[in-house]
Amino acid sequence: MAYAAPLREIEFTLSAMAGADALGGLARFAEAGPDLRAAVLGEAAKLCEGALAPANAAGDAHGARLENGVVRTAPGFAAAHAALAEGGWYGVAADAAHGGMGLPHAFWCAANEMISGANLAFSMCPLLTVGHIEALEAHAPDWIRALYLPKLTSGRWTGTMCLTEPQAGSDVGALTTRAASNDDGTFAITGQKIYITWGDHDVAENVSHLVLARTPGAPEGAAGISLFLAPKFIPGADGAPGERNRIKVLSLERKLGVHGSPTCTMAFEGATAWLIGEENRGLAAMFTMMNNARLSVAMQGVGLAGAATAMALGYARERRQGRTPNGAGPIVEHAEVRRMLATMCARTAAARAVAYACAVAGDMGRAEDAPGRAGWAARAAFLTPIAKAFCTDVGFETASLNVQVHGGMGYIEDAGAAQLLRDARIPPIYEGTNGIQALDLVGRKLADGGEAARALLAEMAAGSDAPALAEARAALAATTDWMLAAGREDRAAGAAPYLRAWALTFGAHLMARGAAADPSFAPLSAVMQTRELPAVSALCREATDGAAALEALPLSDAAAFA
Amino acid sequence: MAYAAPLREIEFTLSAMAGADALGGLARFAEAGPDLRAAVLGEAAKLCEGALAPANAAGDAHGARLENGVVRTAPGFAAAHAALAEGGWYGVAADAAHGGMGLPHAFWCAANEMISGANLAFSMCPLLTVGHIEALEAHAPDWIRALYLPKLTSGRWTGTMCLTEPQAGSDVGALTTRAASNDDGTFAITGQKIYITWGDHDVAENVSHLVLARTPGAPEGAAGISLFLAPKFIPGADGAPGERNRIKVLSLERKLGVHGSPTCTMAFEGATAWLIGEENRGLAAMFTMMNNARLSVAMQGVGLAGAATAMALGYARERRQGRTPNGAGPIVEHAEVRRMLATMCARTAAARAVAYACAVAGDMGRAEDAPGRAGWAARAAFLTPIAKAFCTDVGFETASLNVQVHGGMGYIEDAGAAQLLRDARIPPIYEGTNGIQALDLVGRKLADGGEAARALLAEMAAGSDAPALAEARAALAATTDWMLAAGREDRAAGAAPYLRAWALTFGAHLMARGAAADPSFAPLSAVMQTRELPAVSALCREATDGAAALEALPLSDAAAFA
Repeated sequence: MAYAAPLREIEFTLSAMAGADALGGLARFAEAGPDLRAAVLGEAAKLCEGALAPANAAGDAHGARLENGVVRTAPGFAAAHAALAEGGWYGVAADAAHGGMGLPHAFWCAANEMISGANLAFSMCPLLTVGHIEALEAHAPDWIRALYLPKLTSGRWTGTMCLTEPQAGSDVGALTTRAASNDDGTFAITGQKIYITWGDHDVAENVSHLVLARTPGAPEGAAGISLFLAPKFIPGADGAPGERNRIKVLSLERKLGVHGSPTCTMAFEGATAWLIGEENRGLAAMFTMMNNARLSVAMQGVGLAGAATAMALGYARERRQGRTPNGAGPIVEHAEVRRMLATMCARTAAARAVAYACAVAGDMGRAEDAPGRAGWAARAAFLTPIAKAFCTDVGFETASLNVQVHGGMGYIEDAGAAQLLRDARIPPIYEGTNGIQALDLVGRKLADGGEAARALLAEMAAGSDAPALAEARAALAATTDWMLAAGREDRAAGAAPYLRAWALTFGAHLMARGAAADPSFAPLSAVMQTRELPAVSALCREATDGAAALEALPLSDAAAFA
Repeated sequence: MAYAAPLREIEFTLSAMAGADALGGLARFAEAGPDLRAAVLGEAAKLCEGALAPANAAGDAHGARLENGVVRTAPGFAAAHAALAEGGWYGVAADAAHGGMGLPHAFWCAANEMISGANLAFSMCPLLTVGHIEALEAHAPDWIRALYLPKLTSGRWTGTMCLTEPQAGSDVGALTTRAASNDDGTFAITGQKIYITWGDHDVAENVSHLVLARTPGAPEGAAGISLFLAPKFIPGADGAPGERNRIKVLSLERKLGVHGSPTCTMAFEGATAWLIGEENRGLAAMFTMMNNARLSVAMQGVGLAGAATAMALGYARERRQGRTPNGAGPIVEHAEVRRMLATMCARTAAARAVAYACAVAGDMGRAEDAPGRAGWAARAAFLTPIAKAFCTDVGFETASLNVQVHGGMGYIEDAGAAQLLRDARIPPIYEGTNGIQALDLVGRKLADGGEAARALLAEMAAGSDAPALAEARAALAATTDWMLAAGREDRAAGAAPYLRAWALTFGAHLMARGAAADPSFAPLSAVMQTRELPAVSALCREATDGAAALEALPLSDAAAFA
C-alpha cells in the first residue's frame, strides 16, 4: 500500500496542541526547535514512504521464517532496517556520548508514528531497540554502555526485551528463568521465554537481549527478579561479534497479524549474561524502559489510525456507489460514510494529541532546566497509560471502520484494509494489556492523592469554555473524586471506562486548543465535541458503578446463565 | 474448537423474552409449542456440536479451493452438509407442500444461531439456501416450485443469490448483467457477478442460482431489474441434473476470514435461465427474501457473540495470572476481566433477545390467524435492520473482547480466538452493510410516520419502570420525534447511533422482562442497565447532531487537514 506520512498533522499537533516548541528553549534540547524538527521529520517521512511502506505487504504475505534455527525476514525488511540505521534513527533520542543524536523523545515518537503507519511489523524492531538503548543508558555499567550503545544506536545491532514466560504474562513476577553466577562476573541464564519480538533475524549482525531472571535464593515474586544482558554473539573488547551464545530460537508464533515481525519462543541454555543494575531490582529497571515503550506502542496506535483513516479517505473519494446529494459523486458525499470518516478523523486527531502531549511532558520531565520539571514528569507518568490504551484502541477501531468504509472490498485480503485490521489488533495486548494500563491509572497514577489528575483538570478548565468540554470535565472531576475514595475492587471495576473518559476529554481539550490556533482545524474540533464527548458522561456512569454488580454475576460458574 | 450450544440461553430467550410460546397457539404453527421446540433445538445442538464445530478449524486452515474450474470444500464440510440435510434442516421453515417441515422461522433462527456459532463459514451454505427457498416459494411459477423445492428443502441441491457486480455493491440498481429472451420461455443470462457465496462447491449435486439481470429495453436503475433462476446443471422433468449450464467460476476471493466459504467470481455466458416473478420487479422479489436473510445474518452475529463469550468464559475460568482478591484464583476473579466478560454477556443477551423478538414478530406477521397480524409484520420490518446491524456489531465486538481476555494467546492463530475475530468481521458488511441498515431504519422504517416505532416505545413503557430504562426510553422517544421532523441528510447523519440506541434500549427492556421471569437472570439485566444503557443518551445526542457539522469537514479535499 502506498503510504503518505501525515507530516502536516504531526507538525500541527506537536506545535499547536502538545507544546513541543517549548523544547527548543531548554538547554538539553537547544537545537531542537521547530526548524530542526521539521527537517528531521521530513527525512523520516521520506524514509517511511520510500523504504518501509513498500515492504509492508510482502512482510504480511511472506512473514518471518525459521530455517535451520535461524530467522529469515521478509523481502525488503533488511533494506528497511539499513535505511533506518543509515539515517541514524535508532539513536535519534539516545545520548550523544555513545553515538546518539540527543534529540527529544517526542521526535522519536513522531518518527515512530510514521514507521508504524508504514509498516507495523517492521516498526517493532526499532521500538524494542530504542527501549533497549534507554535501559542500558539508565542502568548498565560504563563498560557495557561503551561497548553496546554505539552498536545499538547505529543500528548495527538490535535489542530485545525477554520478559514473558508461559505461566508469566501480565504477572511478570511469576517468572522462573534462573541466573546462576559463573564466578567470573558473568551469569548463566537458563529458562524459556515466549513472545520475544524480533528475538532473532537476519537484518543486523548481532542481537542484544535484556532478560529478566532470578538468582539463586532470590525472594519470591516481583522482589526477586534481576535484569541481565545476553547477546546472541558475545562481543570481544573491540566490539566484533564473537562466540555464539547458548540461546536458541525454538519456534515462531503463527499470528493474526504483524507476520513480518518474528515472534520467537527462545531457550536460554546456560547463556552467558551480565547483570544490569542491582540484583533483585530488575523489575524497576525494566519499568523505566517500559514507560517509554508504552508511549512507543501508543505511537503505533496513532500510526495505524492515521494510515487507516488515510486509506478510507482515499477510497471514499474515488469509489462511486449510489446517488449522492450532488448526483453521482463518490461515497465520501454520503452522510453515513462521512459519519464513519469523521469518527476516524476525530479519534485519530485526539489520540495523536494525547500521545504527543505525553511525549512532550516526558521530555520536559527529563530536561534538567525545565521549569516545573517534577510536574512534567508526573504529567507524563499520568498520561502514559491513557495514551497507550486509548491510542491502541483507536488504532483498532479506525482499522475496523476502514474495513467498513471499503465494504466487501475491505474483507478481501488484497485491498490492504484487512492486513491493517489484523496488524492493529496486537497493540492493545502487548506492552501491558489495555486492562493493565487502566489498572495502572486508577492504582499507581492516582496514588499521589489525585495531584497529577487535578493539575490536568485545572489546566483544562483554564482552556476552552465550550459547554461540551465543561460538561465532560465536570463528570471527569467527580469521577476522579469517586475513584480516590473508592476501594481497590471498585476502582478496578471502573478503570477502563475511566481511562477512556480521560482520553476523550483531554483529547478534545487539546483539539480545541488546535482550533484556536488554526480555524481550519475548527470543524474537526467541533465534531469531536458534539459526537465523541457525549460518551464521557456515559463512561463516567459506568466507571462509578462499582464492583458489586459485576461480582453478582455468576461468571465463575460454568453451570450458570451466561 | 469445542462448541457447546447455548441451548438453555436460546430457550429462555425465546420463551421468557421473545414471546415464542404464543406461536404454538396459532393454526399455522399448531404443533410448534415449547415441547416440540425443545426437541427440535436439542437435535440442532447435537448436530452443531458433533458435525459442524469439528470442521471449523479445518475450514479456516484449508479453505475452499478452485481446482480446474471446480470448487473443492474443506475436509468435513461435505459431512456437515450431509448431516444438516439428513436432519431436514434446509427445509425446517419451508412449506410442507414441497418437503419442508413448516415450522416457525424462529426455529430456523435458533438452529442458525447454533450453526453459525459452530462454523460460520459453513453456515452460509444453509443461510443462502433457506433464503433461496423462500424466494422460490413466494415468486416462482408452480412447475419450478414443484421441481426445485423438494431438491432444496432436502439439501440435495443448494441455492445462491447473485446480486453484486464490481460497479454495483450497495447500489444494486447499477447492475448491468443482461437477460435475452430465447423465444422458448427461457432467457440467456450474460454478465459477471462477484462475491457469490457458495457459488460452487462439492457438497451437493446441483447449485441453483437466483440472478438479478436486465432484459432488453428495461428501464434504467432499480426499476429495470428482473430475477432469474439459473441452475448449474439443467434438471430434466424428473429432477435429475442434466446438461451443464454456461456458468463458470472464474476465481475465489482470498478473504480475511470465513475461508471455508467459497466466495466466487462467476461468469454467466449465455446461461439458460427462467424468469422468477414479474419482469422488472426483480428487486422487490429479492427484497422479500433479503428481509429474512438479514435476520439470518443477525443470527450469525448472535451465534458468533455466543461462541466468543463462551470461549472467553472458559479461558478466564482456567487461566491463572496475578493475585486475585481470593488469592491465586483464575483471571475471571479480576474485576477488569469481569468487566470485559460482563460486557460480552450483556451484549450477547441483548442481541439474542432483539433477534428472536424480531423472528417471532415475523412468524406472527405471516400467520393468517395471528391477532394484530399487520402490527406484527410492521414490528418485524422495523426490527430487522436493528437486529442485523446490532447483532453483527456485537458479534465482532465480543470476538474482539475474547481476543483481549486471552491476552497474547488471543493473537496466536492456534487458540481459535483469532479465527473467530476474522470470521466475525464479515456479517457487518454483507446482506446490506450496517450503514445501509441504519439508513433503512431512518428511511423506509420511519416512513409510516413513526407508527411502528411508537408502538414499540409504548410497549416498552408498559414494561419495567427501572429509572435507567425510563431515561433511555425518553431519549429514544425524543430522538424519534427529531428524526421524523428532520430532513434526509440530517437523518442519515444520525442513523447509525440512532439504530444502536434502539437496540440497547429494546434489548435492555427484553432482558428486564427475562429478569422478571427468572431471578437468576436479574444480575445480568442489572449490568445491562447500569453499564450499557448510559450510552443511549450519548448516542441520541450524536444521532440528533445533524449533517451540518459533518458537511463542514473538508473530507473530499485531499489537500485539507484529516
